[in-house]
Parts: sequence; C-alpha cells; structure tokens
Amino acid sequence: MSFSLTVLGSSSAIPTSKRFPAAQVLNVQERFFLIDCGEGTQIQIQKFRLPISRIHHIFISHLHGDHVFGLFGLLSSMNLLDRKATLTIHAHAELEPTLAHFKKYFGTDLQFGIDFQPFSSARQSLIFEDKQVTVETIPLRHGIATAGFVFREKARPLNIRKDKVERFNIPYREIIKIKAGSDYTTADGTLVKNSDLTLPMIRPRSYAYVSDTAYYPKIAGLVTGIDLLYHEATFLEKDRKIARLTGHSTALQAAKIAEKAQAGKLLIGHFSSRYKNISAFTDEARTIFENTIAVEDGDVFQVAEERLPYAPQVSETGSI
Amino acid sequence: MSFSLTVLGSSSAIPTSKRFPAAQVLNVQERFFLIDCGEGTQIQIQKFRLPISRIHHIFISHLHGDHVFGLFGLLSSMNLLDRKATLTIHAHAELEPTLAHFKKYFGTDLQFGIDFQPFSSARQSLIFEDKQVTVETIPLRHGIATAGFVFREKARPLNIRKDKVERFNIPYREIIKIKAGSDYTTADGTLVKNSDLTLPMIRPRSYAYVSDTAYYPKIAGLVTGIDLLYHEATFLEKDRKIARLTGHSTALQAAKIAEKAQAGKLLIGHFSSRYKNISAFTDEARTIFENTIAVEDGDVFQVAEERLPYAPQVSETGSI
Repeated sequence: MSFSLTVLGSSSAIPTSKRFPAAQVLNVQERFFLIDCGEGTQIQIQKFRLPISRIHHIFISHLHGDHVFGLFGLLSSMNLLDRKATLTIHAHAELEPTLAHFKKYFGTDLQFGIDFQPFSSARQSLIFEDKQVTVETIPLRHGIATAGFVFREKARPLNIRKDKVERFNIPYREIIKIKAGSDYTTADGTLVKNSDLTLPMIRPRSYAYVSDTAYYPKIAGLVTGIDLLYHEATFLEKDRKIARLTGHSTALQAAKIAEKAQAGKLLIGHFSSRYKNISAFTDEARTIFENTIAVEDGDVFQVAEERLPYAPQVSETGSI
Repeated sequence: MSFSLTVLGSSSAIPTSKRFPAAQVLNVQERFFLIDCGEGTQIQIQKFRLPISRIHHIFISHLHGDHVFGLFGLLSSMNLLDRKATLTIHAHAELEPTLAHFKKYFGTDLQFGIDFQPFSSARQSLIFEDKQVTVETIPLRHGIATAGFVFREKARPLNIRKDKVERFNIPYREIIKIKAGSDYTTADGTLVKNSDLTLPMIRPRSYAYVSDTAYYPKIAGLVTGIDLLYHEATFLEKDRKIARLTGHSTALQAAKIAEKAQAGKLLIGHFSSRYKNISAFTDEARTIFENTIAVEDGDVFQVAEERLPYAPQVSETGSI
C-alpha cells in the first residue's frame, strides 16, 4: 500500500521556470491529498501524471497567493473534465470570499459541490479522518494565520495467517476477534497466542508539512517520530535576520526541528529565488541533520510499508 | 527595431504539461505588450526570458479563466519585484470586480497603480496608441463578449541621407520638413525631390490576435494585409459542429480568414487537448493557406524591418 509524496512546487513567493509555487500531493493508500495549491498546480498534476479526478481533499496552509492562486484553474479544469464528486477544501475561514468570487464570476456552471471546511490554526486540532488516515493541524508562526498538517495512517487490523485458520479450524466470528488482537482457545482448551495466529502489525506511517513558518521549536513536539518531515527553508543561516523578519526559516533551523523531532527524513524547500546554489541548503542542514534532501519539482518520496517486529510477549501465566 | 511575438501559452481551456493556457508577448520596438494572461503566465515570462518589469500594458480578450487566471500571480510577483510603475490593464468592464477582489484580499500592499481601461468589443475601436503603435479591438463571436486585438506600427519619419544634407548644405529647419515628406529647393533654385534626399520608408508592421472565436468571416475585412495573424484553431474540420456549438474555430476556418485577409503568415493555436497529433492542424490549414504554423509554447516569430521600394514618382511639372 502506497504512502508517497510528490512535490509539485518548491519555490517561495516568486516562482522560477524550474520551481513552481507551493503544492504537493500525498498518496496514502491510493487516497490523493492535495496540500496547498500555488499557481500552475493543475499543470504539474498533469506533468507528473497524478490522477486529478481522485483528489477529493485540498488542504490550504495559509492565504498567501503563492499557496492558493492555482485553485481557480484547478477547479475550472476539474469541471471541464466532468467532475461530479464533491471536493472538500480545508482552509482558514478567510478563503471563503475568494471561493465565492470564483463561483460567481468563473464557476456559474460548476457541476460538482465544494464542501468548504474552515479550520482555525490557533491550536493543534484534528480536521479530517477516515478509515485510513487522520489529518491534524500544526500552528505555525508566519504573520498571518498559518497551519502545518500532519498526516498519519491509522493502525490497520492485524492480518490473520490462513494456515493457522485451517490448522485450528477457526470459525469466522473468532477471526474478527483475532484481527482485533484476541488470543484463541481451541475446542480442546489449548490457548493459542494472538502473535502465533497473525502477521506482525504494519507500522502506521506519517508525514508532516510545515510551511510557511518562522523558526518555532514547539513544532518539534507535535511531529515527534514523524517518518517524513517537510519543513520550509526559505533562507540560509547567513540571512537569518531576513528570515525572522519575513516569518520564514533557514535550512539550519529546519534541521533543528527535524533533529529535535527525531524525524526519519527531512525534506526542505520553498527556497528564495535569490539563491542560485541550492546545495548550500543541504550542506547547512546536514551539519545538524544528516538525512536531509532539498526537494525539486517532480520529486517523489515513498515511505515503505514495513511490519513491526513482535513485541516481547507476556506468557499466559502472567509471569514476565 | 524589433517586432516579435513570443507564445507563452497555446492550449485551450485545459492546459497540458507542454502547453500552458493563453498568453503571448508582443515586442514592438522594445515595448512589451502582454496579450491574455492564462495561469502560469509569470512562469513562462521567466522561462522565455522576457523582461517582466517592462510590461506596462496587458490586453485581455475575454473573461474565461484560461485567459485571465494568471493575473493574480503576475501582479503579486511584479509587486515582490518592487515594481513602482503603473500597469495598464485593457479588458471588458466585467474584469473590474476580480481586480477589486485581488486588491482587497491579496494586494493590500501593492506598491504600483493599476490603471484599468475598460473597453467594449461591440464594435471595432482604437483602445490604445502611443508614438510607435496603435491597438484596435476586433469584435469576435464567442458566447461572451470577446475581442481580438490588432497591433499596428505607426509610420516612422523618413530617414534623411546625411550625404545629401552635406552636399546641399541643408539647414536644420528644412530637414524637419524633408523628414515629413517635402522636397527641397536649393539656394540656386534647383528643386531636389524628397525621394532623392531620404531613404525609402520603413514599412509599418502589424499583428492580429484572434482568440477565442467561432468562424466569423467579417474578421478578415478588419485585418486585411496583416503581416502576422494568430487565429485560434481549437478543433479540426471533422469536429466542426462542436466548434460551432462551443464558439470556436477549426484549422480550416482559421485558414479561410488568413486567405481572405491576404495575411503574410498564419499562426494557429488554442488546440483542444483531445488531439494528440498537432500536425493534422497544419495539414488541414495548408490546404487553403500554405504559410501556416501551429505554434508551440516558447515559439518566437519576428517580422523583419524592411524599407519599401520607392513609389513611382510624379514629376514636378505635374504630368504623369
């Protein structure tokens, strides 16, 4: 089952011919979540062969143009492509007049519903969940109300071993209990431990999108143990003052967050167009956090599916 | 002196990864006119190395999203690039609420003025002129109010020959008259014809942008003798009915207009994303108008500067 991130845009406010403004698609088990929607998002979706019709949720971090100006074009093209399914947009309430303007002036023939789900980023909160995934906000520091997003897979039911079902002739009603974690007692009274009946648990994976923000150490506590962390790095440390004044971070600061959070991998992006040499960003970040990558548009990052090792078992007699 | 067109976008409503939505830049003697502003226009301006700060006039043909959704991003980036010069936007009056929305929600810190110049496309009219160029509208047929644009160089003052100025010792006040077309009479009463004192006239060049429109033969009469004609060709002739129903043209119809107008060269674009093979468009158009090119994003078309041959002269005695 997939868990992969495609970077659609990695520039800061002014795009370049090689870096489009902010947008990413996270594929969690074939659910496609669009995160931010800078100008040209629909073009990048096509270029990188992502299924536009299977995007049902858009998460907008904040209302600066480089994170939202692709919405009008994306909605228009979805309509021209005969979309009928409702599209849910999660954003600060301040986006509503812009959606209303779009509908009035450019979307009078819209054939699908837009379910606008406003959130506040004043504190961390759960803003979406379904069977597979939860999405929480992370309060960021960026001048205007801004949220990061944490996507976490939910724990999946245990996979039962077919050979054991056959060997112990386990009835269907018991299988459901075993998948939920129960042991099984056979007809002759033998207790079979759950771990002998099931495959090890698949580890739930996680991704955090942190952009745009000034350096804000509290973020680390909200993304502890995250597999994949995208943290903006608009500036280099030598321009730390400009970063602070404009509500952005340096590559070093992004690395500090990743290190404190014990992230699996750090992705940095949102580079200011003033820098020509992007390798300076990775050099700087890696002084603190080695597993750092400076993203480019079109990059895909997968988090592999893996089964956890069995936890040490407590025997049925209760002794350790 | 330059007269060149750069195609920024050549798709119809749904862009592809290789064709952005409608936008072009016409360079007339180092004045840069932006025609339409589909999503991603600012990115293409950078990619094709056009000087964003030297665009002072934008002409919007009509208010379908694929011709205007690049405006917000372009205006924002101009602002971030410290633009101070007023930008004039020529469009139907219905664009005004969208510009007002932009200013209110995304452009409160705009450091340059926007001079909005609404026009009506009900009839042909002159909407802009300066020392070098005139811009007229062409009424089109496209469901909503839509204008084409004709850009024409003005006739330049004649270039006087320096050798003649020296030979006849012509005073300054007479030079101005000669540049305006007068003959010159020397101190000893000899009449020297203007054509013996000046270089042949530089032929004024012209470009017409015709998009979007259904087949509308009257267009030809408004662009007779045009050097370069861009005419939309969203469909092929086999889909002529869809073209008519959606207010678009076929490649063959574009060629008919070019032939009737005796255009120098026909450019076609705005191809529907349903067609994979664009050479079918040129094949179809060339059955009627040989000098046709199907444009691609980034194509540049120059109209060379050339001096006209001398017109047959009428002798000073008045006989033919």
